[in-house]
Amino acid sequence: MTRNLLSINSIDLGSVMEMVDAAGNLDEKLSSGARRLGGLEGHLIATAFFEPSTRTRVSFEVAARWLGAEVLTFNPATSSTVKGESLEDTAMTLAAIGADLFVVRHAADDAPGSFAAATGRPVISGGAGTTSHPTQTLADLLTIRRHFGHVEGLHVGIVGDIVNSRVAAGLIATLPYLGARLELIGPSSLLPPEEASSPALRSSDLDASLPGLDIVYLLRVQVERGSETGYESEVGYATDFGMDARRLQTLRSHAVVMHPGPMIRGVEITDEVADHPRCLAREQVALGVPARMAAIQWCLGGDSG
Amino acid sequence: MTRNLLSINSIDLGSVMEMVDAAGNLDEKLSSGARRLGGLEGHLIATAFFEPSTRTRVSFEVAARWLGAEVLTFNPATSSTVKGESLEDTAMTLAAIGADLFVVRHAADDAPGSFAAATGRPVISGGAGTTSHPTQTLADLLTIRRHFGHVEGLHVGIVGDIVNSRVAAGLIATLPYLGARLELIGPSSLLPPEEASSPALRSSDLDASLPGLDIVYLLRVQVERGSETGYESEVGYATDFGMDARRLQTLRSHAVVMHPGPMIRGVEITDEVADHPRCLAREQVALGVPARMAAIQWCLGGDSG
Amino acid sequence: MTRNLLSINSIDLGSVMEMVDAAGNLDEKLSSGARRLGGLEGHLIATAFFEPSTRTRVSFEVAARWLGAEVLTFNPATSSTVKGESLEDTAMTLAAIGADLFVVRHAADDAPGSFAAATGRPVISGGAGTTSHPTQTLADLLTIRRHFGHVEGLHVGIVGDIVNSRVAAGLIATLPYLGARLELIGPSSLLPPEEASSPALRSSDLDASLPGLDIVYLLRVQVERGSETGYESEVGYATDFGMDARRLQTLRSHAVVMHPGPMIRGVEITDEVADHPRCLAREQVALGVPARMAAIQWCLGGDSG
Repeated sequence: MTRNLLSINSIDLGSVMEMVDAAGNLDEKLSSGARRLGGLEGHLIATAFFEPSTRTRVSFEVAARWLGAEVLTFNPATSSTVKGESLEDTAMTLAAIGADLFVVRHAADDAPGSFAAATGRPVISGGAGTTSHPTQTLADLLTIRRHFGHVEGLHVGIVGDIVNSRVAAGLIATLPYLGARLELIGPSSLLPPEEASSPALRSSDLDASLPGLDIVYLLRVQVERGSETGYESEVGYATDFGMDARRLQTLRSHAVVMHPGPMIRGVEITDEVADHPRCLAREQVALGVPARMAAIQWCLGGDSG
Repeated sequence: MTRNLLSINSIDLGSVMEMVDAAGNLDEKLSSGARRLGGLEGHLIATAFFEPSTRTRVSFEVAARWLGAEVLTFNPATSSTVKGESLEDTAMTLAAIGADLFVVRHAADDAPGSFAAATGRPVISGGAGTTSHPTQTLADLLTIRRHFGHVEGLHVGIVGDIVNSRVAAGLIATLPYLGARLELIGPSSLLPPEEASSPALRSSDLDASLPGLDIVYLLRVQVERGSETGYESEVGYATDFGMDARRLQTLRSHAVVMHPGPMIRGVEITDEVADHPRCLAREQVALGVPARMAAIQWCLGGDSG
Repeated sequence: MTRNLLSINSIDLGSVMEMVDAAGNLDEKLSSGARRLGGLEGHLIATAFFEPSTRTRVSFEVAARWLGAEVLTFNPATSSTVKGESLEDTAMTLAAIGADLFVVRHAADDAPGSFAAATGRPVISGGAGTTSHPTQTLADLLTIRRHFGHVEGLHVGIVGDIVNSRVAAGLIATLPYLGARLELIGPSSLLPPEEASSPALRSSDLDASLPGLDIVYLLRVQVERGSETGYESEVGYATDFGMDARRLQTLRSHAVVMHPGPMIRGVEITDEVADHPRCLAREQVALGVPARMAAIQWCLGGDSG
């Protein structure tokens, strides 16, 4: 059976942690200086990104290369999609050319699934709609486990534009079931409805929540998706929900800050916090490479599974 | 002597069939799972696409990689051509950097020839003007021969925007000389003048022609080239010249549908036809890779020829 | 210590000539047909070009591949910079993903330095602001030495838009200190102020200068940077400062013409001159590849230095 990684909800928690474990092992090898780990020579991995991205696309490309695969970069802006070709036909064309696995980023939640249905080949979501970004979740879980040694019992606050965040969706779908206590913090316009966020707590008072947290997970306000903070200016938002040096002081001494990037300095995070040793944003990016290697291996190993 | 593949007319029919044969052999190897066939290690193949393309550029890149060559993707939109550099100087620059072979797509019929003249290095047209798309012709001929075992005696109808089609030009230049009977079908505004289409028949009555055909080769209306169908809407065009389930029923039982892509579903082809087993569009794309491998090998083997 | 190549002024002349020597050796190997020289397997070289470029970016990519490194092409136009990420955070992200060395082109002179400061990894300028283009200087010096056997004693005239030229800046910073006599020739609006050009001579009379030159180094007028020639039309500029067949006749018999490209034929150079054997523009491009290989090796060899 073909294995897809369409969203973190589409697979069981055991498979999630299997990939986190594998990513941890791969990271050890990469950290020791080995890079061209190989194993997928002669395989062709196609990236099809219909939305802008730095870290995710490049991270997948590097992951593919360290595994020995060839990368086929499909750029919709210079392609036949401008002539009116359907998403499914584009997918089938790339499959016919030889793509063994697809990485798809798209504004629509179901676009990766459409690629999978059209081609019958494994598909990994590289970010889709407001719900799907599974390899970010893998990188986040690995970052947390590497830092704390465990996930269970941690108190994690996600702060900011949660309702539009595919990153938050992945944490909400996993952390509570791994034994973490999750709190969603932001202006009410950016919080998901109560029924969708359960069993997470909801709060609009960051300062009240901070002293209890082990992890403050900050999110960018996605203005390009029409997010409304309810504030007239970024300054107002930053005053209530931005993480700055003063707020960093109110955290417990072992607590850390996370951010999936891109960071908008001066809004949800100040320079002092972004560049502080307790900010793990860079580790998250770095662990994205082994996380994506593990996802690719998991999907392509599906036939023997 | 340098070997170029500027258009299917620029080489003799023996060389065309030599490449089709070679592509068939390469396809057998690829189909058996071998991919990194090699042979061109240390060679640099430059793609210079001045028009949008999915399948052709990517197909050439994959072909080059399976042959072990490095690919240099030149993107005119982010290049010095925006500063006023001539096509010939761009070509010479890429040659000086080390490109051993060029694949050129351009709106002008003679652009690949300009690259060849400027550099003295082999050039393959990846689609030029309204007359040149030789590797598509190779893939089409291989698809036909693989399906029917032969070309001679087949009755092939090309339907749609023939006058602007580089794909049609390649079929018109080869099929009659390989013993096939060719019929050009479309509104008169999209048919080439009689003197240019001979010895092919011309028709504007698709329904009358269909029962006699072995192959219905559908073409997209290239609105971006200003093609005028003579119809006020796509619906009117589809009524007279679109291939749908009803028309598929009127074909002989062994007849097939071909389409070079991109397909515009609902205009020249309906979903039922596009997704029908008798539609060979996907095979055409798949065989494009070995066809391009054969073209590259043929051009780079020119010195010993 | 990390070695950077931010501008030709940022390193000592001994290091410049060390790279020119190394580039000459690499060129001999490339010219003998060897290409995949290797040595940097498992290394990841990131190109981040914030301005259009043909020859420089592609030349670096080819250089990296012949050294066995993987290339990560970061395209700002389709990246998170459009979401408001800072240059430094983009740099840190690419470093976290695994980039071992950066090649940066940017309109701002200090952008490559910002990448270096943010990441602590080696950075090579691929052209920055109006002052920095060090690998072009390496290619130019190697071209001169290959042709004349030496630099000392040569009389070099740079003609055209000097004040805005990063290419000219590199020659001004090196040639006089290698014993060449340098003359800057152009309309006064395009000449640098006297204090900045010393010890070079300044002239606005090309015809008077030509008979004394060994090398006429032509520059394009960079209209995209707002350069004002003081002429109403390109014809007027060409009349006074364009190199044509008549002016070529007034040169000494051994003198040569150089141009870093892109050439705007009909303005600073006519077809007769551009295509003349005494024009070394193509050699400059060709030697850009070994020059960039040498720069990469020099930067990555910094730890053992």
